[in-house]
Amino acid sequence: MLCTKLEFNRLRSCRRYIQIKGITRKYCAIAAIVEKSDVGSITEVKGWVRNLRVQKEFSFADISDGSSAQKLQIIIPKHLKTEQLTYGSSVKIKGKLSLSPRGQLEILANEVNVVGPCVVLDGYPFNPRTAHPPEYTRQYLHLRSRTNYISALLRIRSAVVKHIHDFFNSRNYINIHTPILTSNDCEGAGEVFKVQPDNEDTIKAMMQEGKDKDSLYFGLKTFLTVSGQLHLEAICRGMGNVYTLGPTFRAENSRSRLHLSEFYMLEAELAFCENIVQLQTVIEELLKYIFTETRNTNEKDIYLIDKENKKPIWLDKPFVTLTYDEAQLILNTKGSGTGGDFNKEQELILVDHCGGPVFVTKWPKDMKSFYMKESNNDSSKVDALDLLTPVTGEVVGGSLREDNYEKLKLKLPSERLHWYLELRKFGNIPTGGFGLGLERLLQVLCGVNNIKDTLPFPRWPHNCDM
Amino acid sequence: MLCTKLEFNRLRSCRRYIQIKGITRKYCAIAAIVEKSDVGSITEVKGWVRNLRVQKEFSFADISDGSSAQKLQIIIPKHLKTEQLTYGSSVKIKGKLSLSPRGQLEILANEVNVVGPCVVLDGYPFNPRTAHPPEYTRQYLHLRSRTNYISALLRIRSAVVKHIHDFFNSRNYINIHTPILTSNDCEGAGEVFKVQPDNEDTIKAMMQEGKDKDSLYFGLKTFLTVSGQLHLEAICRGMGNVYTLGPTFRAENSRSRLHLSEFYMLEAELAFCENIVQLQTVIEELLKYIFTETRNTNEKDIYLIDKENKKPIWLDKPFVTLTYDEAQLILNTKGSGTGGDFNKEQELILVDHCGGPVFVTKWPKDMKSFYMKESNNDSSKVDALDLLTPVTGEVVGGSLREDNYEKLKLKLPSERLHWYLELRKFGNIPTGGFGLGLERLLQVLCGVNNIKDTLPFPRWPHNCDM
Repeated sequence: MLCTKLEFNRLRSCRRYIQIKGITRKYCAIAAIVEKSDVGSITEVKGWVRNLRVQKEFSFADISDGSSAQKLQIIIPKHLKTEQLTYGSSVKIKGKLSLSPRGQLEILANEVNVVGPCVVLDGYPFNPRTAHPPEYTRQYLHLRSRTNYISALLRIRSAVVKHIHDFFNSRNYINIHTPILTSNDCEGAGEVFKVQPDNEDTIKAMMQEGKDKDSLYFGLKTFLTVSGQLHLEAICRGMGNVYTLGPTFRAENSRSRLHLSEFYMLEAELAFCENIVQLQTVIEELLKYIFTETRNTNEKDIYLIDKENKKPIWLDKPFVTLTYDEAQLILNTKGSGTGGDFNKEQELILVDHCGGPVFVTKWPKDMKSFYMKESNNDSSKVDALDLLTPVTGEVVGGSLREDNYEKLKLKLPSERLHWYLELRKFGNIPTGGFGLGLERLLQVLCGVNNIKDTLPFPRWPHNCDM
Repeated sequence: MLCTKLEFNRLRSCRRYIQIKGITRKYCAIAAIVEKSDVGSITEVKGWVRNLRVQKEFSFADISDGSSAQKLQIIIPKHLKTEQLTYGSSVKIKGKLSLSPRGQLEILANEVNVVGPCVVLDGYPFNPRTAHPPEYTRQYLHLRSRTNYISALLRIRSAVVKHIHDFFNSRNYINIHTPILTSNDCEGAGEVFKVQPDNEDTIKAMMQEGKDKDSLYFGLKTFLTVSGQLHLEAICRGMGNVYTLGPTFRAENSRSRLHLSEFYMLEAELAFCENIVQLQTVIEELLKYIFTETRNTNEKDIYLIDKENKKPIWLDKPFVTLTYDEAQLILNTKGSGTGGDFNKEQELILVDHCGGPVFVTKWPKDMKSFYMKESNNDSSKVDALDLLTPVTGEVVGGSLREDNYEKLKLKLPSERLHWYLELRKFGNIPTGGFGLGLERLLQVLCGVNNIKDTLPFPRWPHNCDM
C-alpha cells in the first residue's frame, strides 16, 4: 500500500512540493497539525472524508477530524484508492505533510485505510458539497455533528465556554456549581419541572404517611433550577466574587426560535457591589472579551456558518444606557410604546435605534422580582438592568440585590426562603449579579436564527427523542 | 477616621515596616494582592473578619475575602476600632500594604468601615478559632462557605475544574454539553428521576388523548441523565475527541459517605481508540495532571483541610493494572474473594495491596453494560476498566465501545436506542471512553471522608432544603 517512488516523482513533476527530510511519524488532531505546520514530516491523520474528487492519476480527499474548521487535502495515488473510500467514510491516512502551490497544507498519502465505510444510499442523510437547511439536519440530531454548520457551532460553543472561564479566572472569581435540584422556585413564575424517582420499588421503600409522590424522596417537592442566583448569593457572602455556568430549565409551552426547555446560563454575583454601573462594566467587558477572543480563535468556524459575518461596529464603542422611562419615550416616538415589559419587537427597535447593545436600567418595581434592590432616590423603581442586543433582544438580565434585612423580609414570597433572608443577618454585604443566556449569546455572535442549533441536543416541547 | 502620624510612628517604633512611597489606592482580591505583593502601596481590602485580637493600642484582624486561602492581617489603631468590628462582620479597609517582621504581608489600616455587623449571639452558628465538625456545618448550608474547611474545598473544586478544562483543551478535545433531560436510561439500572411540568395550566394545555402526565410535555417519559456517554459517542463520530463535565443524577435510597443524588461527572470519548491501553494512558495522565497542578495552585487550601496531607508516593509511579481474574486471585489469598462485582472493602484491599491506584481490566461480560466491547481473544470478557484509588475505591469507569453493528444490534436493550446503533452504520470508528466522579476525585485529592462536603449544596434522600 506504500506510494512508490515513481508515483511520488510523477506527482512532484506536476505540482511543486516543499520537502524536508523529517521522517517523524505521528498522529495528531488536524488543529495541532495546522498549528505546528511541520512540513516534510510523515503524518498520520484520522478523520472523515467530507469531499472527494477522483481524477485520472490521483484522487483528492478533504479530511476533517472535527478538531478545527480546517480540512486537510489528501492526495491519493490511484492504486491506493479503494471502492470504500467514499464521501462520509472514516479513514486513517499516512503520508508526507506538504505545501500546495497555493500554500495550503496537504498530505501526499502513502497509506490509506478505510475504517468505516459510508453508503449514502443506505440512508445517510447528508450529501457532499450541500448546505442542508438547519430544519433538515435537526431531524438527525445523532448525525448532524458531521455537518459543517453544526460542528462549527459546537466548536465555537466550546471556545466561548473556555473564554468565559478564562475571563472570570483571571479576575479571581470562584467557579461554583449551584445545584440543579432545588426546593425553591426562584423567579416564582411557576414554569418549573418537578422531579420524582421513577422506580416503584424506591417509591414504596421511601413512602411515609402524609407524604405524596412529589415529596417522598427529598421530603419536599423538588424542581429543576430556573436560576442559581439565590445559591450563588449564599456563597458570595462567604467567598466574594463567584460565578456559575450550567443548565437551567423552563417548562414553558413555547416553540419559538428563542426558547428552549433546557438551556445554559452564565450567572455571576459580585461582592461589595454598590451601584449598577459596576455591574454594567463587568457585563460589557465580558461580552467584548468573548466576542473579540472567539472571533480570533474561531475565525474559520464563524466563516463556515456565515461568510458575511463581520466584526460588529459596536465592539469598539461603549454600550448605550437608557432608563426604562427613556426607552418607553423612544418607543412612543416610533409608535410602538405600550407600557409594561418590552416584547421582542420593541427590544429590537431599541437596539436598532441605538446602533448596538443597549442597557435598560431603573425598572418599575412591580415588573421585577422580589430580590431586586429599590433605587435610592425613587422607591417605585429597582436597580435592575436588561442588556438588549441585535438578533435576540434580551441576552442578559441583572440587578443589585435587596441587602436591607427589613425591606427584604417584607417582600419575601415564601417562608421557605428564610435562609435567603438570613444571609443578610450576619456580616452582610451589598451584592449585584447577572445572568447571561449562553445560547442567545451564540446566536448573536454567529448570527444564528434558531436557538436549537446552538447546542448539541436541543430540548423543547415534544422534542426529547434521545 | 484617618490614622494620625503620631500613631503611625508609635506603631513603627514597636514593629519594623518596609515602606515604599507608592500611594496608588486600589481594591483587589486578596489573591491578587498577595500575587503582586506591591509592598508600600495604599490598598483597599473588602472581606470578612475571621479572627480578631484586641490589644491595648492596636487590634489585629485577620481578613478573608474568599479569593484564596490566605488571610491578610490588618493592624487597626485603637481609635479606628468600633464596637461593630467583631468576628464575622464584613468590612472595607484601606491602608498601607506592609511586610511584618516575619515577612508576612499585612495592612496598617487608616480607614475601617464595618459594612455588615455580625452578632454571634443572634444565632450565628460559627465561632472564631474553632474547627467545627463537618456534620455540624452541614446543617447550615447557606452559611458554611464562611468556614475555612468548606471555602478551601470550594476553591479546590473550582481549580480542579479549571485544570480539567486546561488538560483537554491542550489536547484539542471539544467540550460538549450533553443533555440533562433525556428519554433514554443509559445504564438501565432504573435508578432515575423522572421529570414533568409542575404547572396545572401547562399540563391542561398540553394534554392529549392517550398521553399520561409523564409523557405529555416531551411526548415521551423523560428522565434526568445518569451519563452523557451515548450522546458523547454521537458527537465523537462527527467531531473526534470530546468531553463533558456536568451534573448527573441517581434516585438511589442511599445515604452513604460516597453517594449523592446529584453529582458531577467528567466524561470523555476518544475517537479511533483501538485498545484499552490508550484509554488507561489518558486517564493516568489526567489524574496525575490534576493532582500535580492542584497541589501547586492550591497548596494552602489543601493545608487548611488537612495539615497532614502529603504528596502521594504513587504520583511518580506508573499505575498498576490487574485483570479482573487476577484481582479475584489476590482477594482469595486475603480471604476476601467472593466472585461478582467488588464491594467497597474489596476495592480498598486491592488498592492497599498495590500501594496506589489500580486499573482492573477484562471484566466478565455479564457484569457490565451492553455497549462495552467484547475482548478480541475471549468472548466472555469485555474491554472495560475500573480505576480504584485510596479513600473512595472506584473513581473512574470506562470501556471500549462495541463498534460492530451486528453484535451491538443483538445486545441493544431497547428499540428506542436505534439512533445509537445507527452511529455504527455510516463512517463508523472505534471509540472508547470513561467517566470520572468529580466529587470522589476531590475526596481522594483532599482526603475528605464525606462526599457531601465536596460540593456547595449536596442533595441526598430527605435533603434538598434550599
